[in-house]
Amino acid sequence: MTRKIQTAVVGVTGYAGAELARLLLHHPRLKGVPPVFAGRVDEKDAQRGGIPLGEIHPQLGDNNGRGKLRLEPFSWELLAERGVDVLFLAIPHEQSREWVPRALKNGLRVIDLSGAWRLTNAANRAVYNFEDEGAEEAETTQAQAVYGMPELHREQVAGARLIANPGCYATSVILALKPLVAAGLIDLDRGIVADSKSGVSGAGKAPSAKTHFMYAADNLSAYSVFSHRHTGELLEQIGIDASQIVFTPHLLPIPRGILSTIYVQFKEPQTRISIAAVYEAFFAGCPMVRFSIKTLPQIQYVVRTNYADIGFQLDSSGRRAVIVSCLDNLLKGAAGQAVQNMNIALGWPESEGLA
Amino acid sequence: MTRKIQTAVVGVTGYAGAELARLLLHHPRLKGVPPVFAGRVDEKDAQRGGIPLGEIHPQLGDNNGRGKLRLEPFSWELLAERGVDVLFLAIPHEQSREWVPRALKNGLRVIDLSGAWRLTNAANRAVYNFEDEGAEEAETTQAQAVYGMPELHREQVAGARLIANPGCYATSVILALKPLVAAGLIDLDRGIVADSKSGVSGAGKAPSAKTHFMYAADNLSAYSVFSHRHTGELLEQIGIDASQIVFTPHLLPIPRGILSTIYVQFKEPQTRISIAAVYEAFFAGCPMVRFSIKTLPQIQYVVRTNYADIGFQLDSSGRRAVIVSCLDNLLKGAAGQAVQNMNIALGWPESEGLA
Amino acid sequence: MTRKIQTAVVGVTGYAGAELARLLLHHPRLKGVPPVFAGRVDEKDAQRGGIPLGEIHPQLGDNNGRGKLRLEPFSWELLAERGVDVLFLAIPHEQSREWVPRALKNGLRVIDLSGAWRLTNAANRAVYNFEDEGAEEAETTQAQAVYGMPELHREQVAGARLIANPGCYATSVILALKPLVAAGLIDLDRGIVADSKSGVSGAGKAPSAKTHFMYAADNLSAYSVFSHRHTGELLEQIGIDASQIVFTPHLLPIPRGILSTIYVQFKEPQTRISIAAVYEAFFAGCPMVRFSIKTLPQIQYVVRTNYADIGFQLDSSGRRAVIVSCLDNLLKGAAGQAVQNMNIALGWPESEGLA
Amino acid sequence: MTRKIQTAVVGVTGYAGAELARLLLHHPRLKGVPPVFAGRVDEKDAQRGGIPLGEIHPQLGDNNGRGKLRLEPFSWELLAERGVDVLFLAIPHEQSREWVPRALKNGLRVIDLSGAWRLTNAANRAVYNFEDEGAEEAETTQAQAVYGMPELHREQVAGARLIANPGCYATSVILALKPLVAAGLIDLDRGIVADSKSGVSGAGKAPSAKTHFMYAADNLSAYSVFSHRHTGELLEQIGIDASQIVFTPHLLPIPRGILSTIYVQFKEPQTRISIAAVYEAFFAGCPMVRFSIKTLPQIQYVVRTNYADIGFQLDSSGRRAVIVSCLDNLLKGAAGQAVQNMNIALGWPESEGLA
Repeated sequence: MTRKIQTAVVGVTGYAGAELARLLLHHPRLKGVPPVFAGRVDEKDAQRGGIPLGEIHPQLGDNNGRGKLRLEPFSWELLAERGVDVLFLAIPHEQSREWVPRALKNGLRVIDLSGAWRLTNAANRAVYNFEDEGAEEAETTQAQAVYGMPELHREQVAGARLIANPGCYATSVILALKPLVAAGLIDLDRGIVADSKSGVSGAGKAPSAKTHFMYAADNLSAYSVFSHRHTGELLEQIGIDASQIVFTPHLLPIPRGILSTIYVQFKEPQTRISIAAVYEAFFAGCPMVRFSIKTLPQIQYVVRTNYADIGFQLDSSGRRAVIVSCLDNLLKGAAGQAVQNMNIALGWPESEGLA
Repeated sequence: MTRKIQTAVVGVTGYAGAELARLLLHHPRLKGVPPVFAGRVDEKDAQRGGIPLGEIHPQLGDNNGRGKLRLEPFSWELLAERGVDVLFLAIPHEQSREWVPRALKNGLRVIDLSGAWRLTNAANRAVYNFEDEGAEEAETTQAQAVYGMPELHREQVAGARLIANPGCYATSVILALKPLVAAGLIDLDRGIVADSKSGVSGAGKAPSAKTHFMYAADNLSAYSVFSHRHTGELLEQIGIDASQIVFTPHLLPIPRGILSTIYVQFKEPQTRISIAAVYEAFFAGCPMVRFSIKTLPQIQYVVRTNYADIGFQLDSSGRRAVIVSCLDNLLKGAAGQAVQNMNIALGWPESEGLA
Repeated sequence: MTRKIQTAVVGVTGYAGAELARLLLHHPRLKGVPPVFAGRVDEKDAQRGGIPLGEIHPQLGDNNGRGKLRLEPFSWELLAERGVDVLFLAIPHEQSREWVPRALKNGLRVIDLSGAWRLTNAANRAVYNFEDEGAEEAETTQAQAVYGMPELHREQVAGARLIANPGCYATSVILALKPLVAAGLIDLDRGIVADSKSGVSGAGKAPSAKTHFMYAADNLSAYSVFSHRHTGELLEQIGIDASQIVFTPHLLPIPRGILSTIYVQFKEPQTRISIAAVYEAFFAGCPMVRFSIKTLPQIQYVVRTNYADIGFQLDSSGRRAVIVSCLDNLLKGAAGQAVQNMNIALGWPESEGLA
Repeated sequence: MTRKIQTAVVGVTGYAGAELARLLLHHPRLKGVPPVFAGRVDEKDAQRGGIPLGEIHPQLGDNNGRGKLRLEPFSWELLAERGVDVLFLAIPHEQSREWVPRALKNGLRVIDLSGAWRLTNAANRAVYNFEDEGAEEAETTQAQAVYGMPELHREQVAGARLIANPGCYATSVILALKPLVAAGLIDLDRGIVADSKSGVSGAGKAPSAKTHFMYAADNLSAYSVFSHRHTGELLEQIGIDASQIVFTPHLLPIPRGILSTIYVQFKEPQTRISIAAVYEAFFAGCPMVRFSIKTLPQIQYVVRTNYADIGFQLDSSGRRAVIVSCLDNLLKGAAGQAVQNMNIALGWPESEGLA
């Protein structure tokens, strides 16, 4: 009998980290082998063996926080001692740039939820202002990274040592557009519009003016117009250039979920059937995408699932379509997709632990 | 000293009706002359002189519903007896098609909040399926109607007997686009996208699956894609054809407010200054539009005001812009604009009673 | 190897029904044996074999509604043909009064989520106005009913043929009070106050003025003061009389979750430890109650779980306590507790399929 | 003709400050005399004459922030130069303890929105831990303070130099209880329960874990059980002692509004009429309280008004009542009551500028 896989999570304190912990704790292949949770822990907490997970996320404590799961002080030695196989990083991208090379050297398989290793094109990376941009180790590391969107790169994910887990907005837009662009249907010169709306969890757990209930509730606002960091992912993965798409994120007054409304124009008139055929062929064998020719997706049907739902409407001329793409930003847009990638990398059924 | 103006409201029971009542009750020029509220009242209520307004809208009852304001049984005689000058209709469009000709004959000035008389082009009206389409009386009536958007038709509103108050979505999109289209800047052949999001009050007061809290809350959904009734208004007022714009409404989980994100491409590269100059020139003398070159509008800053807020971002090429337009769907998108039209029609300062 | 258990659900279209379906579809002991979903189905739908579950609750459709699960036309024959063992009823109480006697005669084990069979005292039942009140069959049926709160009646549930699943408010209040009352600590003559607040799903799926987003959102209201139907359950299960408690429900602007704030006065001064000891003893062996001496529960930590969370604060005199009790009205307050009862009745681990 | 009154606001950046600014800017008696807004301003902003109000609160900027109103650097000289008559303080209580004595010496009339001067009993003040507790100047200042609840102390407010504006929770509870306690109806020994729920604006504008949208939304939590700072106000103003009431605040997932559900037991059986008579007599001549014998108040009908709404239900024995009291925490619970107090102090109609 083979040894069970040991996972570790760095960055469990955030929203994506909490979802990751929940998924890994209930994953059928990881029964009895809870993840190692590691991170910054002050001395006092370290002396009591770390911070009980139930104090950080009450919903994760078994019986109200009196459980044994703890956030332990991070060290590479800790990961080695526990025999960690797969390391999930849900940490800021700057930190990921530093840590990933070390983790790979230590033989760990890394699934990184930050934007640190998603972009192969240096120009697209400029927006992140990485300090190690151009350094040899960074280049070598980047060369090993696979963009972790199974629907596009399932085979590469299977063998990857470093999986760059996609951005939440990027996932919702790429899944909607890639099939049509790959099929050569879209008149790219007329321009694509991706109007995306995300719940507040996408803005992170740190209290700020923007995440204050009084700012977010009963409101809607556009932000990062022409300048959002996920734009580079869109371009590289869809295979278009910056002049061919406008992507606008908005802050929705809901806890979680993304809906992207995407506008395209076709080179030749299409029918509902022709469009559906393209999507169905592309997503054949993709258990986590639910394409529908009949109904438009809504956020309520994807939250707390790992599904990406996609639907569309065609205008009477067959020349223009509105595509709607929905997902849960913390699941298919973060922790769920990370687990999906782990499943593939370890040769397990893709949707295991994600139903 | 001149006699004071007497107003009447039919349709006070809905959300726009309630806002209209509030505005008229506090209007400085109408002090001491509350509107006549008329509508369907059953016999029992009729016997007690109508339904106290405070029972319909507790926030409108003075001292919790014990006030004297009442919803009285509608009759043309009632309006005549009370000497009504201006009649506001916040009723279904089918009913408005029937009533407006009679009201005009009776010498009333009518401000109609429905979609009954907004469209001059019969093809655009087809979506409404009016029973009297093509009838002579309908044609004559339509010929008298002025589209009540002061920023576009202030002079015509001033003399109008029948003011067709614009749709809420339409107002938010037209105000954002008309200045740029009128200036000839937009490359219409590349297509405009208007992605609009509205609070639930826009869906009306009748309980339905869609307005159920459990459906609307924590959700977002697109609807009426390529088929919303306000499209005809956009086309006629902006002066474009249906192939040049895609308009998609969404249902936001908030009580009120509309935000439209609008995507345009220019014939020639523009600068922030050149765009701002066009807007500022167009809106000179428009007290209810707040254009800003600096910040993008948000719903929170327009709700419960009659302002339309407009801002934009230009991409680095100067070729593409994202315009954001916000308003309160019940005020600038309905009752507020109706009062603004009344002010103009009666020769009063345009923003009186709307601050 | 024993035959697998076959369940059936009547009333899957409501919110509790949907949760019940979800739990049963994922229950480890019911793998491969999905519930029979039966109910009112019109002829047209009946001809296509019933309504796909994914059309009723898109989140339950596998791959967006194209799955095989269907709501079939109800008949007793259908239940017999499918070999149904356990029948869940999530239907109005009047209907349950009619159906349960028949179901019991047919040898079905019934778990009824309505208020039809919860009350043993005819005076308490008066509020329901049952048509068959006092009839012999009703009496016989009632005599077989067990109030399905495992923390109070685990042993009786184990052998029950008819389980009357408790009300959501009642569950939150009874779990908080029963331990202290049973221990004789509370000065009942001074009166208990139970101030309860529930999310909108508690008001049911039928659209109404009260469940309209515009009524519920940004609002809070008390209702059924001194007259809520769950009061009888409180009295019977806690073992107090109507003069000893005031229970007030409120409608919270959230989708789901109940928080009850309960005020008691003690006969003798207590300590945090003495109170905690009572709760811990009472809930020993109760996997679905999380009592904490340290923190007060919040709705966010119980929604989408089957836990009831209980905490308290004692004033400095030790004479008065505020107890806070939280649960998810659709789970521990309805479908989750129903599955918990099924587990016990079938001799399975109590929390199976509920983690 | 008399000189117009000049007001000043320190603390305009918070939520109550913004409401205060809005009310004063639209107050009919203050037309043309906008308040002086003063506070902490960094050097750079000071050099441009302060921070435009529209940058702090976009809804207050005329025409989107390009107006002339500014937050200027605070100095006593500034107030003197501008001839300030009435100073509103919406600042932390510690700061108010320091500033008010100086302001009084400078001849200013002060309306203080903090808890600094509300309590006459030193024991009740202990919870604030004032550094100057017991100092002579503090005592002298306190002696001049009038608790600014017009319904209780209208005459004293009229002549006051220092008005201590009540707390929001306190206002909702005192208005509901004072009439019944003053009439001697309540059996105080059996204990009163005040279960209060407040919107998030009550928690202030500083971003924190508790005001994060992800914490507050879809949630409800009790806090400061047996220890909230407003308790002292309840005791002093109602005239009861701490053993006679339990007051529990909760954080509601809405922007604004307080609903208090209050439970009392009577010495002798009452009737709806007897209770109503007491309230109506007490609130005769109180334009900002709406008592109703017919309906229970709801938050939706008081938000954005200065009204306190009060209703009740009596049980069939006549021995127990549930009283519901609603107000807007930023208006009748803060800025609105402050303006009401100003009106009285200046001899103006009490509800002027508050309709």
